[in-house]
Amino acid sequence: MDPRIRTHADILVDHCTDLDPSDDVLVRAPPAAEDLAVAVAERIGEVGANPSISLQSERATRAYLRASDAEDFETPEHLLAMTEAADAFVLIKGDRNTAELSDVPTETLAAFRRARRPVSEARMGKRWVGTQFPASGNAQKAEMSTEEYEAFVYDAIDKDWDAQKDHQQQMVEILDPAEEVRVVSGDTTDLRMSVAGMKAVNDYGEKNLPGGEVFTAPVPDSVEGEVLFDKPLLRHGREIQDAYLRFEGGEVVAHDASKNADLLASILDTDEGARRLGELGIGMNRDIDRFTYNVLFDEKMGDTVHLAVGKAIEETVPEGQPLNESAVHTDMIVDMSDDSFIEVDGEIVQRDGTFRFEDGFEG
Amino acid sequence: MDPRIRTHADILVDHCTDLDPSDDVLVRAPPAAEDLAVAVAERIGEVGANPSISLQSERATRAYLRASDAEDFETPEHLLAMTEAADAFVLIKGDRNTAELSDVPTETLAAFRRARRPVSEARMGKRWVGTQFPASGNAQKAEMSTEEYEAFVYDAIDKDWDAQKDHQQQMVEILDPAEEVRVVSGDTTDLRMSVAGMKAVNDYGEKNLPGGEVFTAPVPDSVEGEVLFDKPLLRHGREIQDAYLRFEGGEVVAHDASKNADLLASILDTDEGARRLGELGIGMNRDIDRFTYNVLFDEKMGDTVHLAVGKAIEETVPEGQPLNESAVHTDMIVDMSDDSFIEVDGEIVQRDGTFRFEDGFEG
Repeated sequence: MDPRIRTHADILVDHCTDLDPSDDVLVRAPPAAEDLAVAVAERIGEVGANPSISLQSERATRAYLRASDAEDFETPEHLLAMTEAADAFVLIKGDRNTAELSDVPTETLAAFRRARRPVSEARMGKRWVGTQFPASGNAQKAEMSTEEYEAFVYDAIDKDWDAQKDHQQQMVEILDPAEEVRVVSGDTTDLRMSVAGMKAVNDYGEKNLPGGEVFTAPVPDSVEGEVLFDKPLLRHGREIQDAYLRFEGGEVVAHDASKNADLLASILDTDEGARRLGELGIGMNRDIDRFTYNVLFDEKMGDTVHLAVGKAIEETVPEGQPLNESAVHTDMIVDMSDDSFIEVDGEIVQRDGTFRFEDGFEG
Repeated sequence: MDPRIRTHADILVDHCTDLDPSDDVLVRAPPAAEDLAVAVAERIGEVGANPSISLQSERATRAYLRASDAEDFETPEHLLAMTEAADAFVLIKGDRNTAELSDVPTETLAAFRRARRPVSEARMGKRWVGTQFPASGNAQKAEMSTEEYEAFVYDAIDKDWDAQKDHQQQMVEILDPAEEVRVVSGDTTDLRMSVAGMKAVNDYGEKNLPGGEVFTAPVPDSVEGEVLFDKPLLRHGREIQDAYLRFEGGEVVAHDASKNADLLASILDTDEGARRLGELGIGMNRDIDRFTYNVLFDEKMGDTVHLAVGKAIEETVPEGQPLNESAVHTDMIVDMSDDSFIEVDGEIVQRDGTFRFEDGFEG
């Protein structure tokens, strides 16, 4: 086995989920990532935790969804019971074919997501990590050979996470006490939101591996303005291009896309909360130096801001603050490398992708 | 997809587990059987039941077990919770490599089985079916090409199960009211046991697919004599040959094997009940015409009797009768085609593989 896979597994078990012998852990991976599941299983055995390791077939999910009547989805009680009884989750992605769900009707997918919402919510207060295996389908989508993509993925994961944490802490200290954030890019994006009372979180590779962002929650009703997401969003094998959202009083009042606008609409129509922002994130991982059509990596790029419609991440919303609820959490990315700035309480903290605390910043 | 796979899936969902929209069903299959998992998922979608579909990696299980300390296994509470909350189970086997667990220490396997016993027991009162996908590893073990093995498997599964049920019912009517059964083969096997008060069950492809046997439970303390299992037993990739057991007062008092005797010993040492018989089964599926090193098929061959050490099957043990408990249920097979007979209450009911109710019987 490629030794980088064992390193990846060790980080997942030791750093990200910090497993101990009392933990019941659920490992989910696609068949394409079986090698990583094997390496994680081995490390779990060394640690002494109790695993349930499950390879998830997207081909089976597609077959089930296409054969189903979208009116009929119920929350599977056995999956919910397992999730509630588990202590930690290692959730691995990796596709032989990133378009495997592309011929499932969008309304079926939305209904399926709604029915499974209690299952994903049951995970939320617990230890979990989402990560990526460099499978051939993801390499293809990134327009890279599989070998080159493997190097890209493992370079992003095998970082000095302590140094990364210190670098990002500078942004946490700006964002955490802030009242208002404004994101401007070209003529197409000018968005203001309150983050007053919310908590800015330093992501140094715990719940996401790779990590590399600082994120917080907008106050749900406070978002005003418009945003054009100039990086495409890959969703269930289909690409949403140039997604555009206009907000009034925190709610999406207009939306469009140059490609797959219906898919964007179906996400926004999932429920109430899917039309409001749940996250403002600032990418800070400069080792992720190219866009690969994979939000786990793309949202961490140093020259980007991302916004998620849907569920807010609980640790960013202190008790007593309003928490946006939804069955979805869909991240969309704005390129900030050119003709762009981030303003916090009236002061520019990033211009054209360079932070105030970095060399070359021009305020 | 091979249309025989879809037929197989339909039988599993409609005939074996009889799923309806209220059912939470757990589907487990190895990666090699992903096609069958896909077809089962599709049929579950049509029926409207709620599935959790999980591909199980034996490579991951091996890695976990080899890295674990056998003293440390606990029952995983999340797996138990899922099993308790599920209504039905479709359990598919199929190996790329039947020797995948061959380098896991036998005591580790036994400890693992003990820790997971509550999970398998939680399934027992519910609807479940075990079946086989014709994977390359199983074809190899059967010394058949993959194509020929596929034909063998699907021929055994695509049967007229109503006609098979009627044929087998003749044996049920002999065995169900019986007091004593004697199994004699050559000089090496002469075993007597009481089946008084136990229930003979007609297996026509419900819990096992393929089905094709009539089975009951020996009274645990009643077994006397010796038996040589002349068909090899494949267990975790290792072959136990010429397993020999001698019983006194129902308990194994001597045992041996010409190959992998230690593995046989570890099975018998799992717990108290592993040293007593839990099942007497009579193979009656004449479409299974060759031995393929796979107990699901081998035990159904028309010219065989099988005995299982370990847990009795609950439906064969009426309330008030003694039920043998164990974490294991290991079937072993006696060839009855030559110089052999089965005697029920002093009358010969099968000689040299031919039943009393079949042409060519010589009593």
